[in-house]
Amino acid sequence: MHALRLSEHWDVDPHERTVTLLSHDGNDPSKRSVLVAETMDNARAEGRFKVLKGWRNELYPVYGPNRELLLDIERAASPLFGVVTYGVHMTAYVRAKEGVKFWVPRRARNKQTYGGMLDNTVAGGISTGEVPFECLVREASEEASLPEDLVREGARAAGTITYFYVRDERAGGETGLLQPECQYVYDLEVGEDVLPKPGDNEVEDFYLWTVEEVQRALAKGEFKPNCALVLLDFFVRHGLLTPANEKDYIEIVSRLHRRLEFPTP
Amino acid sequence: MHALRLSEHWDVDPHERTVTLLSHDGNDPSKRSVLVAETMDNARAEGRFKVLKGWRNELYPVYGPNRELLLDIERAASPLFGVVTYGVHMTAYVRAKEGVKFWVPRRARNKQTYGGMLDNTVAGGISTGEVPFECLVREASEEASLPEDLVREGARAAGTITYFYVRDERAGGETGLLQPECQYVYDLEVGEDVLPKPGDNEVEDFYLWTVEEVQRALAKGEFKPNCALVLLDFFVRHGLLTPANEKDYIEIVSRLHRRLEFPTP
Repeated sequence: MHALRLSEHWDVDPHERTVTLLSHDGNDPSKRSVLVAETMDNARAEGRFKVLKGWRNELYPVYGPNRELLLDIERAASPLFGVVTYGVHMTAYVRAKEGVKFWVPRRARNKQTYGGMLDNTVAGGISTGEVPFECLVREASEEASLPEDLVREGARAAGTITYFYVRDERAGGETGLLQPECQYVYDLEVGEDVLPKPGDNEVEDFYLWTVEEVQRALAKGEFKPNCALVLLDFFVRHGLLTPANEKDYIEIVSRLHRRLEFPTP
Repeated sequence: MHALRLSEHWDVDPHERTVTLLSHDGNDPSKRSVLVAETMDNARAEGRFKVLKGWRNELYPVYGPNRELLLDIERAASPLFGVVTYGVHMTAYVRAKEGVKFWVPRRARNKQTYGGMLDNTVAGGISTGEVPFECLVREASEEASLPEDLVREGARAAGTITYFYVRDERAGGETGLLQPECQYVYDLEVGEDVLPKPGDNEVEDFYLWTVEEVQRALAKGEFKPNCALVLLDFFVRHGLLTPANEKDYIEIVSRLHRRLEFPTP
């Protein structure tokens, strides 16, 4: 077994396969966060983990078994610990005469993960201290230039999708890292006069696509994988994917909603 | 270990805890079904299992690992084997000026299971050879007098809920029997002019209730348990139950969609 040289903050038990944070000078979220940050800063400086090259300077929450906040951790470091991460994904759609159409953004080519791939209309990670809806309003403004009032009045919570993200080389991380994720899902029906447009450098362009165009792109693997899950969930909830047209219906629906084995808020 | 005296059709291995059907004269679904029916007929005549008192003369399908039909089994006997059973549940709702309202039936007081409890607008088990949508159309006509055209045009598939039904005394069965179930979920938005009414002796009356009235009845445990799950799923999909108003949101959504460990079609 490869023995990690960790700082004095950690007790590593290779037999039990546990890593325990030792907080000698008190046990509260802010103290734990400092110790974890120190370890991660060192690991990043030593170039020990590829995923840390995607450092974001953004803190994610880590919850305990009683839903209490245990500590905060740098976003890029969370897959090293396999803690659950949270995000919001919103599908903006138009009921046009020809049927439902979807606002589909293409990620900027130079984005460090999944550059050039297709995405959900609005999507983003929830930082420590942020509630899902406020995260959604912020991201909708930043990424898609959608007015705050429109989102506050029109966005409708529609469940969660929960899954394991298996990190691969394409995402610039270690292979085999397993990251449980929970995305809060929202729908936003908009009129044909609402035109999302890139508000930062995250998105290259927005397309207004029919169901068939979205399905073709899904089949070709052009969507970022978790965005494909959100679209499948939309198709299920809106009667576009049905027991009559999809033989894997039962399995798809349950696998979109995996029960996570780890604490959540 | 209690040794079951089964017929010569069965091999019981108490060590491996398996029960194997021995089909000496050929191995096809119809032959297997005859052997299982013979065993269940005998068990019923001997009064061996309380659940068999609810004999329905209705066959349910049992699927194998490659989704093939293995055999058919009497509906009331399926929990003895723990095989997955399937049904349809539809929520008919009205968008009234005051908000969404739900058509809620009360089950007939003399119904053998959950008599007098509240139900979903339309619900029923899927028999062998029936597809979900046709089962829905049939049940909507029989139980709620909803016209076939209205259901064919308006009912929208909206996913599945999957769960374990733990049989208890109230349901007239053995305690501790675990029955995995999959319900295909449909929504039907209707105008205020559509009035469901009892079409057979299964339903006593229909109420048109607000969200608050439904929630109060849910909190008091007045709904048949799996119907409560279907309503929770509706509330989630329609933005009535949200991350902002429900602290158990993540857990509720994933537990409504349990992945079943057994073969499904």
